[in-house]
Amino acid sequence: MTVKVGILGATGAVGQRLIQLLEPHDQFEIAALTASETSAGRTYRDAAKWRVNTPIPDSVADLTVSDTTPDDVPDDVDLLFSSLPSSVGAAVEEGFAQAGYIVSSNSSNWRMAADVPLIIPEVNADHLGLLEVQQDNRGWDGAIVKNPNCSTITFTPTLAALADFGLERVHVATLQAVSGAGYDGVTSMEIIDNAIPHIGGEEEKLETESRRLLGEFDGAEVSLHDVEVSASCNRIPTLDGHLENVWVETADELTPEAAATAMTEYPGLDLPLSPDPFIHVFEDDERPQPRLDRDLGDGMSVSVGGLAESTFGLQYNCLAHNTIRGAAGASVLNGELLLDKDYL
Amino acid sequence: MTVKVGILGATGAVGQRLIQLLEPHDQFEIAALTASETSAGRTYRDAAKWRVNTPIPDSVADLTVSDTTPDDVPDDVDLLFSSLPSSVGAAVEEGFAQAGYIVSSNSSNWRMAADVPLIIPEVNADHLGLLEVQQDNRGWDGAIVKNPNCSTITFTPTLAALADFGLERVHVATLQAVSGAGYDGVTSMEIIDNAIPHIGGEEEKLETESRRLLGEFDGAEVSLHDVEVSASCNRIPTLDGHLENVWVETADELTPEAAATAMTEYPGLDLPLSPDPFIHVFEDDERPQPRLDRDLGDGMSVSVGGLAESTFGLQYNCLAHNTIRGAAGASVLNGELLLDKDYL
Amino acid sequence: MTVKVGILGATGAVGQRLIQLLEPHDQFEIAALTASETSAGRTYRDAAKWRVNTPIPDSVADLTVSDTTPDDVPDDVDLLFSSLPSSVGAAVEEGFAQAGYIVSSNSSNWRMAADVPLIIPEVNADHLGLLEVQQDNRGWDGAIVKNPNCSTITFTPTLAALADFGLERVHVATLQAVSGAGYDGVTSMEIIDNAIPHIGGEEEKLETESRRLLGEFDGAEVSLHDVEVSASCNRIPTLDGHLENVWVETADELTPEAAATAMTEYPGLDLPLSPDPFIHVFEDDERPQPRLDRDLGDGMSVSVGGLAESTFGLQYNCLAHNTIRGAAGASVLNGELLLDKDYL
Amino acid sequence: MTVKVGILGATGAVGQRLIQLLEPHDQFEIAALTASETSAGRTYRDAAKWRVNTPIPDSVADLTVSDTTPDDVPDDVDLLFSSLPSSVGAAVEEGFAQAGYIVSSNSSNWRMAADVPLIIPEVNADHLGLLEVQQDNRGWDGAIVKNPNCSTITFTPTLAALADFGLERVHVATLQAVSGAGYDGVTSMEIIDNAIPHIGGEEEKLETESRRLLGEFDGAEVSLHDVEVSASCNRIPTLDGHLENVWVETADELTPEAAATAMTEYPGLDLPLSPDPFIHVFEDDERPQPRLDRDLGDGMSVSVGGLAESTFGLQYNCLAHNTIRGAAGASVLNGELLLDKDYL
Repeated sequence: MTVKVGILGATGAVGQRLIQLLEPHDQFEIAALTASETSAGRTYRDAAKWRVNTPIPDSVADLTVSDTTPDDVPDDVDLLFSSLPSSVGAAVEEGFAQAGYIVSSNSSNWRMAADVPLIIPEVNADHLGLLEVQQDNRGWDGAIVKNPNCSTITFTPTLAALADFGLERVHVATLQAVSGAGYDGVTSMEIIDNAIPHIGGEEEKLETESRRLLGEFDGAEVSLHDVEVSASCNRIPTLDGHLENVWVETADELTPEAAATAMTEYPGLDLPLSPDPFIHVFEDDERPQPRLDRDLGDGMSVSVGGLAESTFGLQYNCLAHNTIRGAAGASVLNGELLLDKDYL
Repeated sequence: MTVKVGILGATGAVGQRLIQLLEPHDQFEIAALTASETSAGRTYRDAAKWRVNTPIPDSVADLTVSDTTPDDVPDDVDLLFSSLPSSVGAAVEEGFAQAGYIVSSNSSNWRMAADVPLIIPEVNADHLGLLEVQQDNRGWDGAIVKNPNCSTITFTPTLAALADFGLERVHVATLQAVSGAGYDGVTSMEIIDNAIPHIGGEEEKLETESRRLLGEFDGAEVSLHDVEVSASCNRIPTLDGHLENVWVETADELTPEAAATAMTEYPGLDLPLSPDPFIHVFEDDERPQPRLDRDLGDGMSVSVGGLAESTFGLQYNCLAHNTIRGAAGASVLNGELLLDKDYL
Repeated sequence: MTVKVGILGATGAVGQRLIQLLEPHDQFEIAALTASETSAGRTYRDAAKWRVNTPIPDSVADLTVSDTTPDDVPDDVDLLFSSLPSSVGAAVEEGFAQAGYIVSSNSSNWRMAADVPLIIPEVNADHLGLLEVQQDNRGWDGAIVKNPNCSTITFTPTLAALADFGLERVHVATLQAVSGAGYDGVTSMEIIDNAIPHIGGEEEKLETESRRLLGEFDGAEVSLHDVEVSASCNRIPTLDGHLENVWVETADELTPEAAATAMTEYPGLDLPLSPDPFIHVFEDDERPQPRLDRDLGDGMSVSVGGLAESTFGLQYNCLAHNTIRGAAGASVLNGELLLDKDYL
Repeated sequence: MTVKVGILGATGAVGQRLIQLLEPHDQFEIAALTASETSAGRTYRDAAKWRVNTPIPDSVADLTVSDTTPDDVPDDVDLLFSSLPSSVGAAVEEGFAQAGYIVSSNSSNWRMAADVPLIIPEVNADHLGLLEVQQDNRGWDGAIVKNPNCSTITFTPTLAALADFGLERVHVATLQAVSGAGYDGVTSMEIIDNAIPHIGGEEEKLETESRRLLGEFDGAEVSLHDVEVSASCNRIPTLDGHLENVWVETADELTPEAAATAMTEYPGLDLPLSPDPFIHVFEDDERPQPRLDRDLGDGMSVSVGGLAESTFGLQYNCLAHNTIRGAAGASVLNGELLLDKDYL
């Protein structure tokens, strides 16, 4: 028995990654692909400019693209993955949720809304309890679940692994791949032999989403974790994989060895896309590196290296594949969690 | 009247940048070029694989390369610029200083030695007073002056400009260009579509050299500044220009506006290579960028952008051209300072 | 006495290069900058996203941008440089020519029109005689002069230098920089760690424009040269500088030495932007290289290397800076020629 | 039943690719890894700097590296894969062949030797008959089989598919990835924002090896095919995948459609690594592209696009993964052929 799923915004960069992950998936079956009006009615092969480095699956290529409205999506679809631009995401997702669909969304709207669960399954699966609050509040039959921003997903699991030491202050500097801005987001003239500091709005996402993910759910609401976080984000000439430099100050003493143990032993989940181990710790200080390590765990692992005592607490580097663990894979994993927890 | 100068290690990457800067220089005249034994006796055109993007100057191309020993360097040369590998720098520079030469060195040996001035002219020209201490200690007729590591030079001037606010804690993450590792230092297979965290030994240089540069000279020795610094260094696929993310916590309140004013007004010097302004502050948060801004002030400016209130104190980004302001230009500027202060 | 000039499409990538070249120009004075309606009325500083690596000149930054119509351009402007998209170039340029302006255009429309001179000043300045034909035909007070496509400009001068040997067959493969597609023309996701074969329409431009440039003007029309040309174009991850591999078969015997002599001695012109020598021949087979050699002659030289006897005739490589010699500089040089020949 | 195999030069870039291909191979079992004296006696994990983007296989990591001499390789190893530098390849391979080993070699020495089969299995498997000649000539119990240079392998299969049309003249321009020069072969300072024309010795390999591969074996020797080939080689900033522009003139008429059919229908082989189809023809003129298409057929396919009528005959572009189809995979495929033909 498989669950029929649809993809909202299926022709974009994250949409294509979703197809790569969902087409061979044992639990899910792609039954609907939606895009903008100009694409609706055409086959997916015709509507999408396929850009990932595996061939377009035949079963998907011949599907007819629907318009992005509930009327155009078959009723037997139970779960929708959404990778819409945030400017249109809010209205569209609300429409689908009202119409009874469950939406696992990568879009940035509503990530901090009080009644919308923002989830990394290995970190805060219990926040999914917010769905009842959400349905009560909004009177929806359906529901919306969010995954965080790609750069938030990279470092937050490492903080979760260290939470028992009493997280107090975190500094994080990111070296982000161009795919994080979408296929057309960064021109070659902007980034070859260059780097761009400051990514508008991104710093704030790391600073707030991480505290939300680490917060406690009391059955009614999620509190923000007390840890203070400051982020500085940079775009560099790398295709995939966000690398981050992290400094953590904790209430309790935290040695690099204790941190390595806590991260290595931090439990993963028994879901199809959840990697084992969830967090991979390198002994080599020059790892992780984006091109060498982004595909660990089929792109779903978080990797860590350079654990060291810093002038201020602990310092280390971490990495995740931004369009798999940080976007498409994050949404699919949330879908797997929803299925596992009987929300579908 | 020009001063005759020589270049130790003239065929390397920094050596070639030194020639670019010294050949058109009004105060200096290149009179000696030294290299390893295999190059000695050949013309410079023949011995060096010229790799910078301006043609090799004719006056230099026909010079005969000397062996790197005092015996092979003419006596009327008053100043030597050294860009030797640190493994050989210590012994070679000592030999030249004993033989009476003044050496302005970019090599990393002895930068933290108690009696060796480590100088950024606009920041701590008064530390040059250590030269008397050095000559007394070591019984040399000559002397050795150092410039800091390229990544230290990038952010230390910005700290100097903020020193009146009471520097307490600094976090700095670097995005360093490949030229910082020398012409052959980073292979293309290592860095295309990639980034490398942790640069062995580099973090410590930023953390200690910056405190030395900001320290006070009491006529006998230089104390380290009290500020605590933690660095995390990364190599990225950029040719020239180190970009750095900085967080500063100060004893006194420090607004982004006050920081911008302090940096913009931080005085430069009236030396040929010293740029005006010394520190350029961008209003655009997405600047400075390595390719667009490394050539400001002919590669001698430090530029700053993204000044903002952070979760912890102030945060901003800064940039300098690592092989000009951070290496060859730093050594030449120290030479200009030595001339200006009558040490030649 | 300077000639007042204007730039049509001043905010684009070639427009910015035109400003870089014209602002310090001794013969020309920038008196008008035009752009689309949304930019008109704003200062240039405000309207343009300045992206080249020298600061925006103050004298230009404060100019008010005009709409791209003859009514908005002052009458005392004598010469307009045009870098409009070809889709709008034809209508706009015709309007200005009718209104009496001389237009030196880089746009691709009309390059092969029978009465429009297509000019590389060092190669076929005599084709300028077509202007009388053009004005007779079209009843214009003004006129339009074109420069060729950037990849045509790179190899055609080398063919011109070899014309006396009886050009018969030419194969050319290009390795073109991303700037040739405009600032937004190639995304980073398309080109990092990649290359793109076939550039739509580009091959044909090399094959026809080169024969036009090498053709004879008999006072009434320009005939195409008999040489047969086949091109294969590629985009590579390089910022500026088109590198081309060329094979030439000639009626007369042509040794690499004879070719080197013919190219080196091929005469330049005594115009401000015309470099000396026009064609630089490297002895090193691994030159020219885009990053090292594109700035030769301030970006106006054509450079050649790897001259060798091939299985079929002669083979060699050539290079020119595509946005200077191949676009903005080409238009300005045509403007200098127009002034020199008393067309202004 | 598996064949025990060894890898000569196992720590290098091609050696690591060989391990990637051989470790999961059903027919071969890695039983010996050799390297230079400094590595001998250490575990492979310790001796090699593992740089490919899959983890080092555990079964290989713990093997002890042997010295590269027959005495140090177990007698039950039947087949050796060699990726030695050509400077040492000749002597070492001769030693192993004398000692009775079959060597499938990627090294460039002896590729054109009259009694050494140079093989692309899908193209000229019958040339393997030269092995009897070789053993007779040299008195060896073992034997040496070669695969061609990576850039030869890319375009020769496409010529083989067109051979029935009467190949006469071929021009080929290559855009080669940096990995073709080995891990340390191209520094980042050489190639970022750049391209390097002319690769010493490479042009000649394409011109001669292709004619050898297309030649006929008469039971005693291989004649060179009559086709004339001229090559021009370039290095570009791409990690893997050689892209080549080809022009072919044939005795018989050859339309793009006929060429597409001939290439698509050109038969592959039923060996484990031989892809199906062997040659993939794209309809999209902007394909193949290195990053998107190098992994077709697990890196063993040759792909073609841009088939068009040229000024001179036919023109098209082709691509192959240079370190898989062009090096490690080529050697392994030759090993599979040797096994299939009962030479092991």
